[in-house]
Amino acid sequence: MKIQLAEKYGFCFGVKRAIKIAEENTNSSTYGPLIHNSKEIERLNLDFNVSLTEDLNDFHTGDKAVIRTHGIPKNELAKLHEESVNVIDATCPYVTKPQQICDEMSESGYDIVIFGDEKHPEIRGVKSYAQNGAYVVTDVSELEGIKLGEKIAIVAQTTRKAEDYLKIADYLIPRHKEVRVFNTICNATFENQDAARKLSREADIMIVIGGKNSSNTKQLFSIAAENCHDSYHIECEEDINPKWFESKNFCGISAGASTPDWIIQKVIDTIEEIS
Amino acid sequence: MKIQLAEKYGFCFGVKRAIKIAEENTNSSTYGPLIHNSKEIERLNLDFNVSLTEDLNDFHTGDKAVIRTHGIPKNELAKLHEESVNVIDATCPYVTKPQQICDEMSESGYDIVIFGDEKHPEIRGVKSYAQNGAYVVTDVSELEGIKLGEKIAIVAQTTRKAEDYLKIADYLIPRHKEVRVFNTICNATFENQDAARKLSREADIMIVIGGKNSSNTKQLFSIAAENCHDSYHIECEEDINPKWFESKNFCGISAGASTPDWIIQKVIDTIEEIS
Repeated sequence: MKIQLAEKYGFCFGVKRAIKIAEENTNSSTYGPLIHNSKEIERLNLDFNVSLTEDLNDFHTGDKAVIRTHGIPKNELAKLHEESVNVIDATCPYVTKPQQICDEMSESGYDIVIFGDEKHPEIRGVKSYAQNGAYVVTDVSELEGIKLGEKIAIVAQTTRKAEDYLKIADYLIPRHKEVRVFNTICNATFENQDAARKLSREADIMIVIGGKNSSNTKQLFSIAAENCHDSYHIECEEDINPKWFESKNFCGISAGASTPDWIIQKVIDTIEEIS
Repeated sequence: MKIQLAEKYGFCFGVKRAIKIAEENTNSSTYGPLIHNSKEIERLNLDFNVSLTEDLNDFHTGDKAVIRTHGIPKNELAKLHEESVNVIDATCPYVTKPQQICDEMSESGYDIVIFGDEKHPEIRGVKSYAQNGAYVVTDVSELEGIKLGEKIAIVAQTTRKAEDYLKIADYLIPRHKEVRVFNTICNATFENQDAARKLSREADIMIVIGGKNSSNTKQLFSIAAENCHDSYHIECEEDINPKWFESKNFCGISAGASTPDWIIQKVIDTIEEIS
């Protein structure tokens, strides 16, 4: 069977940068998972003694706390500094950007709308920088009935689809005097998505590798499934079911921005053994 | 035959205001037509001695120059002031707004895109306030190949359709870091358009009254014609052809923002005589 990787897949700039920071800071602890990939987090723990701490209160004076790629809420960052914890910021610069925008725009009197998942750590962090709060929506219908001022600023979760973001903008523009649209969607996400779309149109089975809680991997899977009926979202080679590959000729592979190459290689090896 | 006026039609706030200003300034001259309605301009000349001057150089020290609702280019306004002409500004406040936005946004380093007709007096005026120039487009295709910076500000001609403006915004948003969308489309235009749309779905003949060079009247006519095959754009009752009304039962009437009530009444009287 032909096995082909998408032209663009896997680790983005922010994830590569965060892992490098973690590897350079042995004997530290990340506050929450550094990236949405449990296998890579295990590796960092085993090879670099970078552990995972879920509770903010477990950090004490002098501890080394690595801030995850998704960022953390403003008040939690302040608390770490207050406790004289040694803060090492691995927040993706593309996430720091919407945090800053929320800060500046609320300072300038704009009402803020965030297009993203309220429960996602990135958005919990970004929202915390809106000084007077922000409306977080995943669909335009959620804007109905919300009273907003004349001047609106909107930002998007880095891993969202641009066409969905435009629907939010298009709803707000005719209803307000000014809508300031910040394109905070990450190019790497676009590129992985475009490549997955292209490949899934040719393949008769698509394997999308990434954490089950990884937003961008879920988006990739959704794009693959639109074009290729037999698409599967797996975290690692152990999730593979050999039956999927029966009577298939062309397997396309894509992977989320937090999926390391060593996991992708194991998946390829396993598929090659099956077919 | 049933004759019905649209729920909203005719004079907008800016036109009413400009005519009041002209009537209060007898023995003055407008620089270019005050509004796009030659009959109303004739009336102002006959009843208030407000004449029409087409050439800027014809204004001299002490003359009273009324600035038209559409505004004039920045350098021409400066020249009038330099010549110590007594300038009376009847620019619609909804047109002054995009002029100010172009000024402020170019000052703040934004590239400016104007959605409108480059040849229309309003847009010639608005564009002149963009300190480093602006791109004026009527269709998204005109943006292809244009090199713009990371930060874009967009304004629209007051009489444009919102859905067309969104196409410009939607093209720019994914391609730039920030798109600041100013909703400079006038509500009165919206309201007249909505009412014309509604009425034209019921009527079997639609009469749209307004200057042939009036942008907003042309939009009203285009909306009427979409829904009612027998739609006619006329300037006054003299343009009416009685044959249009043969075997018609329901005549809808709308009028552009620069069409005075006295012209509308003459049209209604004429149709009543015919039918």
